[in-house]
Amino acid sequence: MYFKLVIINIPSMLFLLKTYGEIYMISSAAREEAKKKIINLANDMYESIIKGSRPKIKFPVRSLTNARFDAEKGTFTLIGKEKVRTLTVNQAKIFAQTIKMMEFSKELLDTNDFSTLREAYYVSKNWGEARFDDQQPSNSVIEDLEAALDFLREELGFIPEEDGSSVVGHLKVIDKTPEGEEINVDCTKLGSGAYNIPNDVTKLEFETDADFILAIETAGMFARLNAEKFWKKHNCILASLKGVPARATRRFIKRLNEEHDLPVLVFTDGDPYGYLNIYRTLKVGSGKAVHLAGKLAIPDARLIGVTPQDIVDYDLPTHPLKEHDIKRLKDGLKNDDFIKTFPEWQNALNQMLEMKVRAEQQSLAKYGLKYVVEEYLPAKIEDEKTWLP
Amino acid sequence: MYFKLVIINIPSMLFLLKTYGEIYMISSAAREEAKKKIINLANDMYESIIKGSRPKIKFPVRSLTNARFDAEKGTFTLIGKEKVRTLTVNQAKIFAQTIKMMEFSKELLDTNDFSTLREAYYVSKNWGEARFDDQQPSNSVIEDLEAALDFLREELGFIPEEDGSSVVGHLKVIDKTPEGEEINVDCTKLGSGAYNIPNDVTKLEFETDADFILAIETAGMFARLNAEKFWKKHNCILASLKGVPARATRRFIKRLNEEHDLPVLVFTDGDPYGYLNIYRTLKVGSGKAVHLAGKLAIPDARLIGVTPQDIVDYDLPTHPLKEHDIKRLKDGLKNDDFIKTFPEWQNALNQMLEMKVRAEQQSLAKYGLKYVVEEYLPAKIEDEKTWLP
Repeated sequence: MYFKLVIINIPSMLFLLKTYGEIYMISSAAREEAKKKIINLANDMYESIIKGSRPKIKFPVRSLTNARFDAEKGTFTLIGKEKVRTLTVNQAKIFAQTIKMMEFSKELLDTNDFSTLREAYYVSKNWGEARFDDQQPSNSVIEDLEAALDFLREELGFIPEEDGSSVVGHLKVIDKTPEGEEINVDCTKLGSGAYNIPNDVTKLEFETDADFILAIETAGMFARLNAEKFWKKHNCILASLKGVPARATRRFIKRLNEEHDLPVLVFTDGDPYGYLNIYRTLKVGSGKAVHLAGKLAIPDARLIGVTPQDIVDYDLPTHPLKEHDIKRLKDGLKNDDFIKTFPEWQNALNQMLEMKVRAEQQSLAKYGLKYVVEEYLPAKIEDEKTWLP
Repeated sequence: MYFKLVIINIPSMLFLLKTYGEIYMISSAAREEAKKKIINLANDMYESIIKGSRPKIKFPVRSLTNARFDAEKGTFTLIGKEKVRTLTVNQAKIFAQTIKMMEFSKELLDTNDFSTLREAYYVSKNWGEARFDDQQPSNSVIEDLEAALDFLREELGFIPEEDGSSVVGHLKVIDKTPEGEEINVDCTKLGSGAYNIPNDVTKLEFETDADFILAIETAGMFARLNAEKFWKKHNCILASLKGVPARATRRFIKRLNEEHDLPVLVFTDGDPYGYLNIYRTLKVGSGKAVHLAGKLAIPDARLIGVTPQDIVDYDLPTHPLKEHDIKRLKDGLKNDDFIKTFPEWQNALNQMLEMKVRAEQQSLAKYGLKYVVEEYLPAKIEDEKTWLP
């Protein structure tokens, strides 16, 4: 059956690959580059087939085995292991799927459209024998292309199912309607509401005179800081993370950091999850998607609180660490290259292990609802020595 | 120890209760009413104590045992069971906590401030022996007050930790800064982004000339409909639900429905979770918080899709039902008063049990990315016969 698939697919592959040679209207620099790479890859495969050799696609291995923490860059980087997908009888179906997905990506870029990952899976239902039977392999082929072409999948037209979180403060988001009308959202004019970061932030532009971004773990604390107009008093942008930040939130903050030189200060609960899941993901990315670290990780980020030392200094109400908290801390100390690179982090995690307690960011309300706004955060922002790297 | 607590607390209780007699500046009608009720309750308790009898607080039992589905109203209603909390040696601590929470609520209303549930718990750390040792009992006392006073806890100054989801379309949200400046957010001018519904929507006002609200299960489908400007073509408001809708989202949609007579059309996946968790929560509320049904449930809501019949009519790609899906459907048919009230729903769930499959809302992408916008939704919106009640 796979052999039959190869026979069936070679002519249609050839047709698909050839049509990539045409020149198209270009909508944006990243999309232009992405399209060029798709066309080049398609041309290479076409040439191989014409010459009678097997077409190939190369991508970096997307796992921890191919990752190293680069202390200089402050992110995980690839150590160069590659996977090669060659058209063989066994690989016929996934090879055809990869090429169909390249075609679909180019179609999305040509029409200035997008597809969510879930939509892409259902679109494949029309690909005859190259259709996917499950969404996971479909996502995986899109991630292969992301790695092979070295573009964010958003730049290839594939957007996440999940949107981003909320933003207020000294920021104007400049967006364009499909008809080319410019939309300007002033994030100082949203009242108790906020700007909801869309699933795809690649097409947004920003104007800002803020001094920094404050990224906040919980929606409750974000509501507090927004109600007190913290962003006005401290000339900043507030972004909620809502737990481990979604891809759109990470990319949004990363772009503000890189393109507008904004420092990123992070305010989480004082607990292993806040440090090793939320903050770590924002700062260095996840080991599993190491090929994306350069585009999503924010090595400039700093944790301003709640640190283990804050729990002592501010005499905060605490909860005892649970078994899984202790396990997470020990695991971080032993296995996490990020933690191992920073003695400050090793000390902080060891301090928490000794104290055997954690504290939530709202525990500052012990001193009154406005304490976090009027005392804690201003003092912490002033004093870099109390931050964690 | 509890006895000591009673002794300690009676004088401070009396002081607290007495100060409630004063007259305060009133910020809004609901807050004025809420404050009056707090003061009346406090006065009653004060009178009891002065007369030498035990003070009492009454609240409706907040559980399914006190709930009945009212087919006429279309929501769960209370059947009148009451719980009485009397000051006894055993109840001394929780009684003191309830009174301290009433005081805190009044303080929030007086200062036009709010507290998240988590903040309230930490504020209690200053209440001496009346402090809470855990957040759950603290939340529970707030819910007692909500039930006893028959006000939403937001109207008592307590807001949820969780914010609401996202909204775009023909809607202006009118908000006020604490300084009284009016903020007007035009939800047609947010580009690919959206208005993020805040944790507390009680203070918002709305202007709209929309014909209906379309409430959408997934953020991915919301992004699709927003990108295609579905709200413009169909003069409506789009609200994402992001799974089972948060309290703020439910109240936001409910207010648009009640105060602006907007029909609420709901678009979920065609599966037991979409029907019996997401849609059911929005429409009739949860059995556990039955005292809130009148303020959060939206009996006018209608499910426009994906219905089991749509799976047949549109020949959608499906996934087989899992064991827990089948269990959920059978449980709904057998035990859910809402389902038992509507033969249409019984037929729909039985049909799904027979078909043994479910379909996601994105499965319409089988016919192309724009099919949902150009064909499916317009046809469904036109044809009420295809909806479920």
